[in-house]
Amino acid sequence: MNSKLQFEGWLRTYGERSELALERLLDAANTNPARLHEAMRYAAQGGGKRIRPLLVYAAGELGDNASTETQAALDAAAAAIECIHAYSLVHDDLPCMDDDDLRRGRPTVHKAYDEATALLVGDALQTRAFEILANVQCDVNIRLEMISALASASGSRGMAGGQAIDLDSVGKKLDLAGLKQMHAMKTGALLSCSVQLGGIATQLHPSQMQHLANYSEALGLAFQIVDDVLDATADSQTLGKTAGKDAANDKPTYVTLMGLDYAKQAAKDLQETALASLESFGPKARTLKDLALLVVNRGK
Amino acid sequence: MNSKLQFEGWLRTYGERSELALERLLDAANTNPARLHEAMRYAAQGGGKRIRPLLVYAAGELGDNASTETQAALDAAAAAIECIHAYSLVHDDLPCMDDDDLRRGRPTVHKAYDEATALLVGDALQTRAFEILANVQCDVNIRLEMISALASASGSRGMAGGQAIDLDSVGKKLDLAGLKQMHAMKTGALLSCSVQLGGIATQLHPSQMQHLANYSEALGLAFQIVDDVLDATADSQTLGKTAGKDAANDKPTYVTLMGLDYAKQAAKDLQETALASLESFGPKARTLKDLALLVVNRGK
Repeated sequence: MNSKLQFEGWLRTYGERSELALERLLDAANTNPARLHEAMRYAAQGGGKRIRPLLVYAAGELGDNASTETQAALDAAAAAIECIHAYSLVHDDLPCMDDDDLRRGRPTVHKAYDEATALLVGDALQTRAFEILANVQCDVNIRLEMISALASASGSRGMAGGQAIDLDSVGKKLDLAGLKQMHAMKTGALLSCSVQLGGIATQLHPSQMQHLANYSEALGLAFQIVDDVLDATADSQTLGKTAGKDAANDKPTYVTLMGLDYAKQAAKDLQETALASLESFGPKARTLKDLALLVVNRGK
Repeated sequence: MNSKLQFEGWLRTYGERSELALERLLDAANTNPARLHEAMRYAAQGGGKRIRPLLVYAAGELGDNASTETQAALDAAAAAIECIHAYSLVHDDLPCMDDDDLRRGRPTVHKAYDEATALLVGDALQTRAFEILANVQCDVNIRLEMISALASASGSRGMAGGQAIDLDSVGKKLDLAGLKQMHAMKTGALLSCSVQLGGIATQLHPSQMQHLANYSEALGLAFQIVDDVLDATADSQTLGKTAGKDAANDKPTYVTLMGLDYAKQAAKDLQETALASLESFGPKARTLKDLALLVVNRGK
């Protein structure tokens, strides 16, 4: 792993690079219709930890990333995955879904604008994600592979499907296997896709992609368990969103199903699995390892 | 142009082919989560005139379309554009937008299922459109060009942007130029994209693509004017959706801005422009010409 100081520098550098990629690849806020484009930027540029773009860049360090084309592909992937993530948050916050007023410490898009605009903002951010990947100046096969991976991870067999299962789970006693499957789709698929995009951009071999998939599967599950732990223990100000909602809505969580202590231990175990999956990459994987530690230990 | 009988046979053949393409390229209704996938099929397979897929196939007759790959590209384009159209209808019908209970003579998706499911159905149909194009077995450059064209036409500078302008127009006195620009984005862009996809799939030259663009620009405007004329004159049963809503909502329409007679004449003139744009293609363009006549004279 990096030294703490090295990793903090990396986080700063690639956090800024994620912001720059979004700044450059979203339409300007004064593009007609200006209100929609301004709201798209409000949704996508309102902070957040940028975990998905950071995972893209970190996975991009595993392969050959020296060329300008590869770097452009990584920027496009980072911006595209964040557009998809932002769209999902905007739609998730709508009254017919989670009905949240607060996101990343600011009013949600339908509160800052209105519901219809929030609907269109999510729709158009999704479109923009695919448009960004289709138009990046890199090898055409890499572009297509990235588009296919992102669509598969975010569509009805991925993120959107997980949200549908989540909807159906309210008031039901989903068991642990059901909860895992729901989260693997709802949040895990997009996290896995982040490292997958980095691997596609740098043309990793299939066996290397498999190691990455093992890493991200463990990381995705750990991420969600930590989310539930934080939701059960932190307050709204720390979270930047309304705390304790899942429990209040009688939604099953890892904490309600496993208990708090076991959930914390499971997150630790998964962190170890994630780190072990990267052994064959040697020192090139140190940033991905640091990110796994960051994700599991966040909010403490 | 074709004889009436020939054209009716063409419509039947390619209407069925559009349905088959959707049947094959949507996920099966029992794919997990089954409720979402069933609702996606409810939204996309509930009839409709399939004008956009028909435009794809008709434009596909202008170039070299003999190969299996090109035919696969046309099927993918037909299904993808209908997925985008269906997603836009599902979201448009939601309470925060047009709040419609009836679509194509059946309950809208949020009435047949629920609002949250309708939101996810639209989201996932959009994703599926790009996934279909990314994975069709044809030349990679054709796939990327189709994805880029579809994203551009359906995103914030196209269809979604037009819907945003439409939202802002309620209660305002949008003038004719403003109304045209709104409709060029809201409905015109996707109609134009339909013929564009057919042209991309059959690798037309840039000058031929320009003729196609002229055709579809005129057709798109005519289409919307006819829509407004029908909305002002037909009843809900004939339309398969709630009639007279725009006027009731004080939204500007071509009929309110131009008057009924002038609107009808404008549609006729645009039909002539559309037909004239196709002259250089000779007899290969007869189906596209027939479709222009069908669109302008529909509902009579």
